Amino acid sequence: MTSAIVAEPAWANRTTLSGLMHFGDVVVFDDPITTDNNLHSPAVGRAQGLYLYDRKEVFTAWLGFSFVFNSTEHKGTLNFIGADPLMEKVRDVSVVGGTGDFFMSRGVATLMTDAFEGSVYFRLRVDIKLYECY
Amino acid sequence: MTSAIVAEPAWANRTTLSGLMHFGDVVVFDDPITTDNNLHSPAVGRAQGLYLYDRKEVFTAWLGFSFVFNSTEHKGTLNFIGADPLMEKVRDVSVVGGTGDFFMSRGVATLMTDAFEGSVYFRLRVDIKLYECY
Amino acid sequence: MTSAIVAEPAWANRTTLSGLMHFGDVVVFDDPITTDNNLHSPAVGRAQGLYLYDRKEVFTAWLGFSFVFNSTEHKGTLNFIGADPLMEKVRDVSVVGGTGDFFMSRGVATLMTDAFEGSVYFRLRVDIKLYECY
Repeated sequence: MTSAIVAEPAWANRTTLSGLMHFGDVVVFDDPITTDNNLHSPAVGRAQGLYLYDRKEVFTAWLGFSFVFNSTEHKGTLNFIGADPLMEKVRDVSVVGGTGDFFMSRGVATLMTDAFEGSVYFRLRVDIKLYECY
Repeated sequence: MTSAIVAEPAWANRTTLSGLMHFGDVVVFDDPITTDNNLHSPAVGRAQGLYLYDRKEVFTAWLGFSFVFNSTEHKGTLNFIGADPLMEKVRDVSVVGGTGDFFMSRGVATLMTDAFEGSVYFRLRVDIKLYECY
Repeated sequence: MTSAIVAEPAWANRTTLSGLMHFGDVVVFDDPITTDNNLHSPAVGRAQGLYLYDRKEVFTAWLGFSFVFNSTEHKGTLNFIGADPLMEKVRDVSVVGGTGDFFMSRGVATLMTDAFEGSVYFRLRVDIKLYECY
């Protein structure tokens, strides 16, 4: 499965948080999942979770999030955690569990930044490979 | 196993955080786990972790937490992550690991809001089904 | 594998956050991993993630983090979540997944506080046992 997370301008909220937290920023997100790289395509679900980043030396992040699918094709959730060194072209996080159609799934998801327009919009390409399922 | 997490009035702290974070709230909790729906029952452990929520369109949340059991019956921890669409009656999160009596466990936990009194108290019913253990 | 996470003085940032969050603190960290208990040893990777703690009754924490290895010996990540009752000598968290050399790993990591100097420095000893790998 290949999905693109399309982040809405609400991401700009990050700026507000930076003023409060000197070391790391905590960003809460809730963004549509589309099956191509077009923000206006019909969403097959939502990507929801948290995103930490740290500006000390290198631009890196830590992610905990879920894909909540609600389409005719898929109902259920996939849960992810992992480190995300944003400046690398390709990076892997773990699929640590799932529910519904993705009951008990485990695997690896490869993240690629697909579009990045300052702090107001970015899009992530997510290739999910499940190696355990029931 | 069926457990009820009983949240204490300390949850009201959420209100303080909302003023600071415009998009999402991050709530840290540490609440007693009881085996029935009575706050005054003896606790068999603590539910500890974090809870994010977002008010953009629908009332939804993302959870990362642990059950830390410390009773004559159970010692050990269960670790959970998942999305929590609060307004649905029943929703599933993943049990992604465990320690002690719950060494290497995996499964699915079904959450049901059992009582909700404004922002000062709520109780969650949690039905845990473990499909992998050692 | 036995690794020591060496936390830098940046941890002192915690103090800043406490003023903002009354109930729980959220700390974002990005610290070197060394293979012995010396801060000045060459780092084999970074420990990155988040750390919540709560001072209500007992000193406890919840952890979500990754070890990002980048040495001649290991490339890849290990992902952890769990409760961390800091005042206990030994406590276990779950290894819920991995990537690269640690593809699909699961296991248990035992944390021991190895050095603690007020709020400016502490070192954690982490013994990792992987029971599932590919």
